[in-house]
Amino acid sequence: MKLTILRGELNDAIQHVSKAVASRTTIPILSGIKLDTDFSGVTLTASDTEISIQSFIPLEVADKIIVSVEKTGSVVLPAKFFIEIIKKLPHEEVHIEVKEQYQTIIKSGSTEIQLVGLDPEEFPILPSVIEDQIISISGTLLRDMIKQTVFSVTTNESTPILTGVLWNLQEGQYKFVATDRHRLASRTAQIETKDVNFSNIVISGKTMNELSKIIPDQDVMVDIVVADNQVLFKLGNVLFYSRMLDGTYPDTSKIIPQSFKTELVLNTKLLNEAIDRAYLLSREEKTNIVRLMTTEDGLIEISSSSSELGKVTEQIVATEMKGEPLKIAFNSKYMLDVLKVIDSEEIFIGFVGAMSPIIIKPQDHNHSLHLILPYRTTN
Amino acid sequence: MKLTILRGELNDAIQHVSKAVASRTTIPILSGIKLDTDFSGVTLTASDTEISIQSFIPLEVADKIIVSVEKTGSVVLPAKFFIEIIKKLPHEEVHIEVKEQYQTIIKSGSTEIQLVGLDPEEFPILPSVIEDQIISISGTLLRDMIKQTVFSVTTNESTPILTGVLWNLQEGQYKFVATDRHRLASRTAQIETKDVNFSNIVISGKTMNELSKIIPDQDVMVDIVVADNQVLFKLGNVLFYSRMLDGTYPDTSKIIPQSFKTELVLNTKLLNEAIDRAYLLSREEKTNIVRLMTTEDGLIEISSSSSELGKVTEQIVATEMKGEPLKIAFNSKYMLDVLKVIDSEEIFIGFVGAMSPIIIKPQDHNHSLHLILPYRTTN
Repeated sequence: MKLTILRGELNDAIQHVSKAVASRTTIPILSGIKLDTDFSGVTLTASDTEISIQSFIPLEVADKIIVSVEKTGSVVLPAKFFIEIIKKLPHEEVHIEVKEQYQTIIKSGSTEIQLVGLDPEEFPILPSVIEDQIISISGTLLRDMIKQTVFSVTTNESTPILTGVLWNLQEGQYKFVATDRHRLASRTAQIETKDVNFSNIVISGKTMNELSKIIPDQDVMVDIVVADNQVLFKLGNVLFYSRMLDGTYPDTSKIIPQSFKTELVLNTKLLNEAIDRAYLLSREEKTNIVRLMTTEDGLIEISSSSSELGKVTEQIVATEMKGEPLKIAFNSKYMLDVLKVIDSEEIFIGFVGAMSPIIIKPQDHNHSLHLILPYRTTN
Repeated sequence: MKLTILRGELNDAIQHVSKAVASRTTIPILSGIKLDTDFSGVTLTASDTEISIQSFIPLEVADKIIVSVEKTGSVVLPAKFFIEIIKKLPHEEVHIEVKEQYQTIIKSGSTEIQLVGLDPEEFPILPSVIEDQIISISGTLLRDMIKQTVFSVTTNESTPILTGVLWNLQEGQYKFVATDRHRLASRTAQIETKDVNFSNIVISGKTMNELSKIIPDQDVMVDIVVADNQVLFKLGNVLFYSRMLDGTYPDTSKIIPQSFKTELVLNTKLLNEAIDRAYLLSREEKTNIVRLMTTEDGLIEISSSSSELGKVTEQIVATEMKGEPLKIAFNSKYMLDVLKVIDSEEIFIGFVGAMSPIIIKPQDHNHSLHLILPYRTTN
C-alpha cells in the first residue's frame, strides 16, 4: 500500500471510525484502525465487535483530489497513536507507505513516522447486510428520537434487554421506547417508509449515543438497513453497524395510565429551574427526593429537605390545574432528565395518585411521553 | 443578621472565596463560608487554614445600591450548597435573615430556603498582618511570574520545601524560583518597590495557582504584605492570605551553567510542535524520553521510539547553531511545559554535554530561565 492523502479528510474519517475502537480489549487487533486502499479510494474501519464503523475517502470530492493511490493494499495501525499524530502532522499532504511485515512509514513535511502495523487479515470481517429492508429518516429527527429516549435505559447489566432502546415500525409510525423500570421514555415519528414493518428490535443505549455523535449537524438522510441480528446505518460515506440485543423487550403499554385524577399544565423552563434548585438539596441526601403538592390557593409547591442542610421551598403558578389536590414525591434527577429534552414551552403532567406513575408530555404535540414512578414516602 | 443583597455581586464574592473552602476536611466549620454583616457591607470569608480568602461587598458601588442592611450579625453557611444555590436563584434580589441558632432564611422570588447555619465564633480567626512591608506589583505581571515557574514545583511531599515557589526581592529585583530536582524554572522582574528586601520566602505552588485564578484579567495593582509567617495579597475588595512554607530553600544558583559547549537558537512554535509529536510516542513507554541531536548537514533531529509502536523522527532548521555536535536525551514533557509558557518567538538552548543541565531561555529578553536535567541513556 502506498498513497498520498490530505490530512484534513483523513482526520475526519479517523474521527468517525474512532468511536468504534475498542478501548479496553484483550484482543490487540481491535485497538487498531484498518486501512484498505484500492483504486477508488481508502476505507477506514474500526470495530469493538459490538459496533463497527467504516468511513470511505474517495479519490476526489468536487474536483479536489483527496487521495492519490500508487499501490493498493491493507494494514491495521494502532488507533490511539494514529488518531493523535495525524491531527498534529505539520503538512497538509500525508504520505503513507506499507513495507514488509506491515511496517508503515508516514511522512508529512519533515516528520517521518515508522509504525508497527498489524496483519489486516486478523481484523474482524464486517457482517454482510442484505439491503432489502431500508428505512430513510432525517438525521436530525433520528438524533432527537435518540436524545429523548436513550437516557431512560438502565445501566444495570442484570437486565441486559433494558440497556437498549426498543424500536418499532408499523406503517410509517416509528417508535422508540426506553425504560429502567423506574421511568420510561417513548418517542414516535411519522416517516416516509411505509413498506417496512418490524417490532422488538433493541439496540444498546451506548450504541445509540455513539451513533448520535456521528450524525452531522446539517440535516442529511440516514438510511437504516435491518438484517438478521444487525442494523446498518448509512450516513453518506460512513457506515455504522450495530448488533441487536438478544431477548424480548417487556410489554410496557399496560403501565401507562390513560386517565388522570390530577392534571397540570406548567411552563417547562420555570418547572425545570424550580426542580433544579430543590434537586441541589435533595442530592445531598443521595435520594434526590423532591415533593410536589398543590396548595389551597391554587399554586404548585415544590420542596426538598436535608436533615443536615435544611429545606428548599418553591412556588409555581400553573397555567392549568384540574382535578383532585395532590401530594407526591419523586426522584428529581429523573424529572430533570425529562425536562432537559422535552421540546415544548409548556408541558402536561398527569397524576393518578401518590403511588401511581406520573406522566409528562409536551403540550405542543404528541410525539413524546415520559413516565416516572413516584417514591413511596410516609410524610 | 438581616439584609437584602444583589445576587450578581453576592455570587462574585462567593466565587472569590470559594477557592479557599476546604474540600476534604474533618472540621465541619471549614467547609462553610462565613458572612459578617455590619453597616458598611458584607464580608465573606473562607479558609482551609493553608489559605484564607476574604471578599468585601460594600453597600454601594458607583451609586448603585448593592446591600441594604437591616440588622448586623454573622453566620457560617455550608459552602457547597450555598455556592450553587445562589447561582441559580430566580430573582436579582436576595433576602438573607439569620434566626435563632443560626437558622438562616434565604428568599428570592418565590424560592425560600432554610439553611442550617453554624456558629461564626467557631470559624478560624484570620491572622492579623501588620502592613509595614508592602510591595506593589501589576496583577498581570504577577500572574505571568506564577505561570512561568509554578509548574516546576515538586508534587512529592517528602521534600515539602520544594512544593513551593521561592521568592526573593532585593532592591526592586523580584525573583521566583521553582524546582523539583529534575528541572528548574526562574523568572525575574523589576518592580517599583525599592525599600523592601527579603529572601527565602516560600509559598506553596498550589496556593500560587489559586491566587493566579483570582487575579482579574484587566490589569490591577496587587499589594503584597509580608509578615511573620504569612503573606497577604490585596486585590481591591479581595484579601488572600497564605501561610509560608517552613524550611530553607536549597541554593540553586550553582547548578546553572554559565558557558555552553553547544548553543542553539530555535523557533519556539516549530520546536514545540516537533517535540509534541515525538512526545506522543514517548509517553507510550511512560518515560517520555525524546532525543535531540545535531546532524552533519546542520539540522536538528528530534526523535523518540517505542518498542511496541515504532519511531518518530523530526527535523528542524535552527536559526543559529554554535559549538560542538550534540546528542542528548531528555523528558519531553518537561520541555513541553517550558515551551508552553515561554513568551518569546525564538528561544536559546544551551548544552554543556549529554550529562549536564540543559538551559532554555527566551531569545527576546532575559526575564526567565529554565533548566532541565537530561536522561542518562546508553544509546
